[in-house]
Amino acid sequence: MTDKNQLKTDLNLVREKSPLIHNITNYVVMNNTANALLAVGASPVMAHAMDEVADMVNIASALVLNMGTLSEKWVDAMLVAGKAATIKGIPVIFDPVGVGATPYRNEVAARIVEICKPTIIRGNGSEIMALANEKASTKGVDSTASSSSALDAAKRLATETGAVVVISGEDDFITDGTTVHIVKNGSKLMSKVTGMGCTATAIVGAFAAVNENALVAATNGMALMGVAGEIASAKADGPGTMQLYFLDALFNLTNETFAEQAIIE
Amino acid sequence: MTDKNQLKTDLNLVREKSPLIHNITNYVVMNNTANALLAVGASPVMAHAMDEVADMVNIASALVLNMGTLSEKWVDAMLVAGKAATIKGIPVIFDPVGVGATPYRNEVAARIVEICKPTIIRGNGSEIMALANEKASTKGVDSTASSSSALDAAKRLATETGAVVVISGEDDFITDGTTVHIVKNGSKLMSKVTGMGCTATAIVGAFAAVNENALVAATNGMALMGVAGEIASAKADGPGTMQLYFLDALFNLTNETFAEQAIIE
Amino acid sequence: MTDKNQLKTDLNLVREKSPLIHNITNYVVMNNTANALLAVGASPVMAHAMDEVADMVNIASALVLNMGTLSEKWVDAMLVAGKAATIKGIPVIFDPVGVGATPYRNEVAARIVEICKPTIIRGNGSEIMALANEKASTKGVDSTASSSSALDAAKRLATETGAVVVISGEDDFITDGTTVHIVKNGSKLMSKVTGMGCTATAIVGAFAAVNENALVAATNGMALMGVAGEIASAKADGPGTMQLYFLDALFNLTNETFAEQAIIE
Repeated sequence: MTDKNQLKTDLNLVREKSPLIHNITNYVVMNNTANALLAVGASPVMAHAMDEVADMVNIASALVLNMGTLSEKWVDAMLVAGKAATIKGIPVIFDPVGVGATPYRNEVAARIVEICKPTIIRGNGSEIMALANEKASTKGVDSTASSSSALDAAKRLATETGAVVVISGEDDFITDGTTVHIVKNGSKLMSKVTGMGCTATAIVGAFAAVNENALVAATNGMALMGVAGEIASAKADGPGTMQLYFLDALFNLTNETFAEQAIIE
Repeated sequence: MTDKNQLKTDLNLVREKSPLIHNITNYVVMNNTANALLAVGASPVMAHAMDEVADMVNIASALVLNMGTLSEKWVDAMLVAGKAATIKGIPVIFDPVGVGATPYRNEVAARIVEICKPTIIRGNGSEIMALANEKASTKGVDSTASSSSALDAAKRLATETGAVVVISGEDDFITDGTTVHIVKNGSKLMSKVTGMGCTATAIVGAFAAVNENALVAATNGMALMGVAGEIASAKADGPGTMQLYFLDALFNLTNETFAEQAIIE
Repeated sequence: MTDKNQLKTDLNLVREKSPLIHNITNYVVMNNTANALLAVGASPVMAHAMDEVADMVNIASALVLNMGTLSEKWVDAMLVAGKAATIKGIPVIFDPVGVGATPYRNEVAARIVEICKPTIIRGNGSEIMALANEKASTKGVDSTASSSSALDAAKRLATETGAVVVISGEDDFITDGTTVHIVKNGSKLMSKVTGMGCTATAIVGAFAAVNENALVAATNGMALMGVAGEIASAKADGPGTMQLYFLDALFNLTNETFAEQAIIE
């Protein structure tokens, strides 16, 4: 099922075009996200002031919205940026971090989906189930639901919103409501590094910036995360070194190795 | 003096129960704090919006308040979260970063102590002396007072507030006002990594979440910091690699090695 | 042209005096900036609340203003802190991150220059050209202009503002409007680590805190960045490990090796 050529093409385009990815994201992961985007060849910018988000969207190729450490002004800026991105026609990638944990997160996530009309939504199993209004026991920002058990919720969410929905986990599931891609790459150690999911969302944003087919872009972005994660974890002694080797792997990965090692069903 | 069994039990409980630790902390250390909590087996969440802090406290097992990069809205949220934690009966761990450096920090720290009634307060020598209203020359956020010279202030602070007070330093002193535990583990290189103190506060929070005896929980949490710091510094070439090896050490440390290497008097 | 003795003297003074550097900077780089300042021997503090910035300036030896993730309240605090620093007579180092990318950034950067009267301004080629009101195609926060092509703009900016202006790039150019120093050290991998420019600004701040000659302080600070970058990149496998080895190199560099390896024209 893996389209090896498309994998090579997409990674190559990210590196050649170095698309500007505008992130309105959380405090915990900003550094990692920026470094991961730089390592893969994209150009990151973080900007959240109401006074400039629309202008920043205007020079960006994709917008990543992440509500990990949300608060009122940041949410307002996300909505304005999301609307501007929709009008401009660049992809909006949404990471509903911790949705299901508090009523505020549920309410904000619903508003972002409605107003920003995300092209792609990426979360863990619990988050996707919560966003689809299914009962899921959430625990802060970590998932308690398996990816496969959340797949029905993901399909429904995709159908209702028009977004491609990505569930991260041991296997990653990517669906537009009908077709389902499964990325089999990855490493358990990735779940012990904070913000790996947020990094995945940003990387998917970089791929969506160069490939208009959101289902394929999301799949290939997740495959890149998984392949780099495997390379890094083979060398890492724990979550600390993992974090750095992951960035090295993203940076050093050739288009060919990427295409060879990606396992997509 | 070291209760080897309790050390093993506490670390084991953190890993088994994976308690949700709600952090309202500073921008500088959020990533490290989250990674350290993940590495030790706890589940971190960072949330500071007034709209959700009380709800987040409701699903958390401990609340960590850190005023490193304080500002009005964050302080308001800390007070609300602290009150909610007191009512719910989960431990509140307070890190008065930089108290003594500015009048604003002094005023906020006093308010947090009064309203949030912390279970445990952790700071360096200068901070504990400043919080106890003793004259201490502070220099930004780094300590200029030795731990032992701050011990009297710590005892008085513990007696007046009912909190267990931890002074970090070459030796760590932990007191409830009467009993004093001394943790002899650690490495000088730890003071060259920003936010190691903040990490200690969060780790102590994880231990307090699984052990109701705050004096023992704080002691054992500090011992874990020290032991992991020793393992990491033996391998590190400087403060950069130290930071990562420290996370690896937290992650890989067995209950047995922890109990063996901890030196508590 | 390199004054080897001054290089040794400056680095030595930073380590001996451990000047307190007050940073009002962006969320992405706070951790790196604090760690780099600690590694070089300075004492970092991050504080942005209007309620305390003037008090913090009062105990600081230099003020670093960085507008990477600017918003209204932060800008207000920068202006107050900058004015306080001007009155106190400590150096103000300004990093106009992303100026040229949005009208808001242009407007804020101009206000900071006018009100805070920076002693030193450091940016990449695009940023310095944008700040000097020259046409430069900017792309988020990454430079699209070479350092040498921005040199005329830097000279004009220096003359108009009275600041020493630093352009970072493959070669770094440092000018007071008349004299130009060129630092030839550095590594391409540095541009793949987010916030290396921001780190440079902070390190320059530490040097300016111990050397009243802003042109020499800025030059020597940039030389330290370059030398540490060369040492780190010789060992690094990519931008992930680079980040850590860079901190190790800053920490381990002797005054002698620094003076030997620095190439300043």
